[in-house]
Amino acid sequence: MFFKIADLAVKHGFIRKNMLPNINFDQYKFGPVGLLLLSNLESEWFFHFVINKDVTVFINKDDFTSTFNFAKNTCCDRLPFGIVEKKGNKKMNSDDLIQYKTLTNSDSIEFCKRFPEEEKQFLKGTFFISPNESTKFFHQFQRQRRIWWRKISASPGRYLLTDNKTCENGSQTVEINAKYPWGYQEIEKLVLNSDLNDLGLENSQVQFKEGRKAVRPHTVTSTINLSTMFLNFLCDGYEEPLFQGKPRTILRFHRKVAPYRISFAVSGTNAVSISELSDLALYLSRQLRSNHISTLLLPSTSKHSLEAQYKQYDQLGVPYTAVLNENTLKDGILYLRSRDTTLKEQVHVTSLVTYIEQLFKNY
Amino acid sequence: MFFKIADLAVKHGFIRKNMLPNINFDQYKFGPVGLLLLSNLESEWFFHFVINKDVTVFINKDDFTSTFNFAKNTCCDRLPFGIVEKKGNKKMNSDDLIQYKTLTNSDSIEFCKRFPEEEKQFLKGTFFISPNESTKFFHQFQRQRRIWWRKISASPGRYLLTDNKTCENGSQTVEINAKYPWGYQEIEKLVLNSDLNDLGLENSQVQFKEGRKAVRPHTVTSTINLSTMFLNFLCDGYEEPLFQGKPRTILRFHRKVAPYRISFAVSGTNAVSISELSDLALYLSRQLRSNHISTLLLPSTSKHSLEAQYKQYDQLGVPYTAVLNENTLKDGILYLRSRDTTLKEQVHVTSLVTYIEQLFKNY
Repeated sequence: MFFKIADLAVKHGFIRKNMLPNINFDQYKFGPVGLLLLSNLESEWFFHFVINKDVTVFINKDDFTSTFNFAKNTCCDRLPFGIVEKKGNKKMNSDDLIQYKTLTNSDSIEFCKRFPEEEKQFLKGTFFISPNESTKFFHQFQRQRRIWWRKISASPGRYLLTDNKTCENGSQTVEINAKYPWGYQEIEKLVLNSDLNDLGLENSQVQFKEGRKAVRPHTVTSTINLSTMFLNFLCDGYEEPLFQGKPRTILRFHRKVAPYRISFAVSGTNAVSISELSDLALYLSRQLRSNHISTLLLPSTSKHSLEAQYKQYDQLGVPYTAVLNENTLKDGILYLRSRDTTLKEQVHVTSLVTYIEQLFKNY
Repeated sequence: MFFKIADLAVKHGFIRKNMLPNINFDQYKFGPVGLLLLSNLESEWFFHFVINKDVTVFINKDDFTSTFNFAKNTCCDRLPFGIVEKKGNKKMNSDDLIQYKTLTNSDSIEFCKRFPEEEKQFLKGTFFISPNESTKFFHQFQRQRRIWWRKISASPGRYLLTDNKTCENGSQTVEINAKYPWGYQEIEKLVLNSDLNDLGLENSQVQFKEGRKAVRPHTVTSTINLSTMFLNFLCDGYEEPLFQGKPRTILRFHRKVAPYRISFAVSGTNAVSISELSDLALYLSRQLRSNHISTLLLPSTSKHSLEAQYKQYDQLGVPYTAVLNENTLKDGILYLRSRDTTLKEQVHVTSLVTYIEQLFKNY
């Protein structure tokens, strides 16, 4: 089934096959539509890890120690705070490499092996927490992270936390797994660590104030492989619902991460009305786009049958399609087709933008 | 003056000095607060180049030819469409390298020289336009691009278009410059090209349909150096307004790109009220953050004088500060201080989120 999904994804520009002579399994690279999906996923991650955290979070690039010192200084030597970073393969320290090896040795389909080594990137968040609060924080964090995956998923029941594993050095590890027909995929690793030696910080740097006491923080880290996250949501959305008795492939992306939020379909009987409806579609698309809503408006809109267009948009994972027909020119009413229900509802052209904004506002 | 700005930016975590033994001028890297600014700038660029375009835009990574073919196919061999990409130094083709050399040979402060070579990244947009429309598109595009820079700038008059230069091969080039006390800075290059040879595409690939005719598209490209864009907005925002007779440094970032949109200041007379006000500030900060508004809430909030806090927030470029005092605990009214006017207005705590959302909605 994974390869069926991959074929569909290749066809619609989510991924590209990486042609290399000396590998004996399919490897992929990001395609143009996939990069839109990836950009939405990274935005959701950024929102959850940087903007919407109770603790102050700083972004790091290249120099963890100097970011740590700036953060510590800005927070007046008080805990808690966090540091997030996007790390390439080359910039990993020994700790990351161990995690990385664990990832590539896991069984089955192995999302993380499906992209070339040099493309590997990790989203990593490190939170510095007072030792008195670290266990509580770790448990809350596990719950928050699981909710995050569920919230932007097409089938929230897929995401499970593993049991807490304690290592020799006292660190605790929990993984978030996604359940697929072909097995479990590890998609995120959460670690609570009381030992800061891996971070390359000096002893004097990790002294924080708590009231009148000096404390050494514990760290809670989250590590996500970017291409694993990407492939997860590609597979997460895949379904084969029956349509007129036959299975039909569809990508049910959550509307917050769908590469295109609304597409257009035009059905007219003659060249004049088709041209007028195409102009109307262009006008509506512009209005939506200037309101930060990503739309898909293709020249094929007026050329293929409605069913063929629906099929293409469903396979691209577009949540809604605005259907314009000749009556729209008379009474201004268009039909908004939902990908998930395949039902259509009437919306007046003047209220389309407001209505769509409402639909995409909440999770 | 540039070095005064740079010192201020280093102090507040926008940039870091890049310590290298063998360079004789100051070179920088991105600091934690600077990366927030950069992320906002990239979002504005992405919105303008990908989401809010009249033409369909595809994102490319690594393989221009295959993205081009996908785009052409998706658009049924019809023009126009666009391809955008973020390119590192290593992935540039010969055409980019020429542009790059032009950039580094420019005079004066040279934003683009201030970041290390290996960090150089370009945001590039290429639009494929029908030859009949390319000149019109190019002129509109120049205007749109100038408006974009002006719209998120603290002093819109700074941005000027140079005259149209025609090269030997027939391509036309226009630059967008920013005017500073120390001279002009080139910040974006726009090129109209009728010759597609630089793109490495085969002749058969660049045949498009227009009605019944076959046409070869013209291209309109925009190239922006990421670190130049970043330094530009850092310098663009810098001002030294008089405050009680003395000049005071301030970063007037546009509210759409400011790293933090709102900060908190607490003033109380005793430990109990300070603790209650800090809790209230934390509660309000959480509410704003869950509405995608980036806030700054530091442990120093209750420790420094109001004036010291304003100074810090002004230098960080935070557009608004919510000031909580003991009356807030009684009547629920806080003061919202504007960085630009230094005036305060009363807002009730219950309407803060809605009010702030309104303030940040439009440009």
